[in-house]
Amino acid sequence: MRTIFFKNKPVIICAKSIGGPKECAGDIGEFIDVKLKDDMLGEQTFEKAERQILYTAFSECLKSSGKTENDLDAILAGDLLDQIITATFATRNFKTGFLGLYNACATFTESLTLGSVLIDGGYMNNVMCGTSSHFSSAERQYRYPLELGCTRPPQSQWTVTGAGACILSNKGEGPKIVCSTVGRIVDFGVTDANNMGAAMAAAACDTLVTHFKETGLSPSDYDLIISGDLGTLGSRILKDLTWEKGWDIEAQHVDCGEMVYHIDEKDYQGGSGAGCSSMTFCSYFYKRLKEKKFKKILLMATGALLSSVSSQQGESIPGIAHAVSVEC
Amino acid sequence: MRTIFFKNKPVIICAKSIGGPKECAGDIGEFIDVKLKDDMLGEQTFEKAERQILYTAFSECLKSSGKTENDLDAILAGDLLDQIITATFATRNFKTGFLGLYNACATFTESLTLGSVLIDGGYMNNVMCGTSSHFSSAERQYRYPLELGCTRPPQSQWTVTGAGACILSNKGEGPKIVCSTVGRIVDFGVTDANNMGAAMAAAACDTLVTHFKETGLSPSDYDLIISGDLGTLGSRILKDLTWEKGWDIEAQHVDCGEMVYHIDEKDYQGGSGAGCSSMTFCSYFYKRLKEKKFKKILLMATGALLSSVSSQQGESIPGIAHAVSVEC
Repeated sequence: MRTIFFKNKPVIICAKSIGGPKECAGDIGEFIDVKLKDDMLGEQTFEKAERQILYTAFSECLKSSGKTENDLDAILAGDLLDQIITATFATRNFKTGFLGLYNACATFTESLTLGSVLIDGGYMNNVMCGTSSHFSSAERQYRYPLELGCTRPPQSQWTVTGAGACILSNKGEGPKIVCSTVGRIVDFGVTDANNMGAAMAAAACDTLVTHFKETGLSPSDYDLIISGDLGTLGSRILKDLTWEKGWDIEAQHVDCGEMVYHIDEKDYQGGSGAGCSSMTFCSYFYKRLKEKKFKKILLMATGALLSSVSSQQGESIPGIAHAVSVEC
Repeated sequence: MRTIFFKNKPVIICAKSIGGPKECAGDIGEFIDVKLKDDMLGEQTFEKAERQILYTAFSECLKSSGKTENDLDAILAGDLLDQIITATFATRNFKTGFLGLYNACATFTESLTLGSVLIDGGYMNNVMCGTSSHFSSAERQYRYPLELGCTRPPQSQWTVTGAGACILSNKGEGPKIVCSTVGRIVDFGVTDANNMGAAMAAAACDTLVTHFKETGLSPSDYDLIISGDLGTLGSRILKDLTWEKGWDIEAQHVDCGEMVYHIDEKDYQGGSGAGCSSMTFCSYFYKRLKEKKFKKILLMATGALLSSVSSQQGESIPGIAHAVSVEC
């Protein structure tokens, strides 16, 4: 069994999001809590700017929860940079336990899954989960430094500059986490580091079909089935693959990557990055769940498990996706 | 509270270790299960060799457990390379859930902690935990490529080429995990990427003192208090710092990094790396626990949370340590 059911249903008592200028100008921009005018935040390097972004998400989230640092038992976080250095340095300012996670852009739902286990099992009372990404640091990390001015192919996505953080608690008001399906690594054989959507789609399909089989639910049981950052091309592949397995998710499926920008040619296939699903969930979806406009959603962040070394050594790009079921 | 108590005490039903030629020639060499004669395992790159090492630990561990891949609910793993690419590609061969973790050389006890929570809470029945490192890939990742032939300063440590993997289960025979203290990030202000022991010692002290306070235990309740890879210098700092806080661990303390080689001048401060604590625990300590030569030990892997970018950007090196209490 890869699906975990939570008897006590951990509560997401608060969530905060932060986004860069491009993200705030996008379709969900009005829902983002902290709207940046400068994606460098006055810092000298992209990496330090990203760190400030995640730190801001954490501190705004903690502030709005009415809790103090001492109430938090742990922070579960990760990001795309080498050695998850953003999450580490953003957490360094807090006197709380730290559990560093990495499943690329699927890290946010990995953190919600493990955070829920810690809360639901009675091991902790409050944990904070969060992930971030930054367009400029991610380009340098995974593809080419921006200063080179490389052209981008049409199948590429635009890494979200932003972060989302939320606090899971054993009591309080808010949307609840019902169950979680842990993803496995699926390698679709894609070797193009610009074509992440295709690389992740098969893993997303595997998790989704496993979720339906193990829970007995069907797509129509959800108001929305939300993939993390498959983008336009990857989303189409997911829908095709899932349809081939006997499930039609056309009516329920949306993708954070497709939603986050007002997609035109310049955005290519839409947004991506570890901050894509967390920023979108902690802004638009969290607010809509609180308003009860959505009653039950499945959030499935998707990750492409490559490094620059694995790409250079000719490896294909395996994908992973973890799905978390949230209801209000 | 940062200490988690396990009511059902997850059982470590099996553990397997693998080590390179230098590790097998060291003081615990005879206890290592798979003794490599060639640390490249016939591969063309250090990274691919490390991947084979972790994969071998996983498959040997699964084989010896008498369980099949289908019995495993998840693999919790991590390593030192960018985007934990070793753990990802070693896990790609298994059809099981994957939860990628990163807390540098503290990842092994992070995996035991989260694995125990999953088992103890009844969420999963069997999980495999493991970490690896490789001297040559780590040098290239964190310091200089070996081909440059840089000299090593006396405070440096030697990254272990090896891995350890174990299976935690809700039933069966073997040493049991009693409780776990989650570490927090402590920055001692060290900026020398060659002096990891000093960078991690303060975090180790913080976790250890928190463990004693929250459990009510004292050093003499343990046969051994085992730090991960502080090395000779770091171990001395840990003992000093802990003594200043009112606890004397001199009689119980050993360090995997100090044990793993027969330390002479060429080994500098001893071993380090995410594979240091996992290889040592899954070989020497696991066998001694099974023989009941040790009844109760505290394993505290220690991690230095740096990346090459954070070092180049002048950041200090924060440390973290997670402690896991194991009894037979």
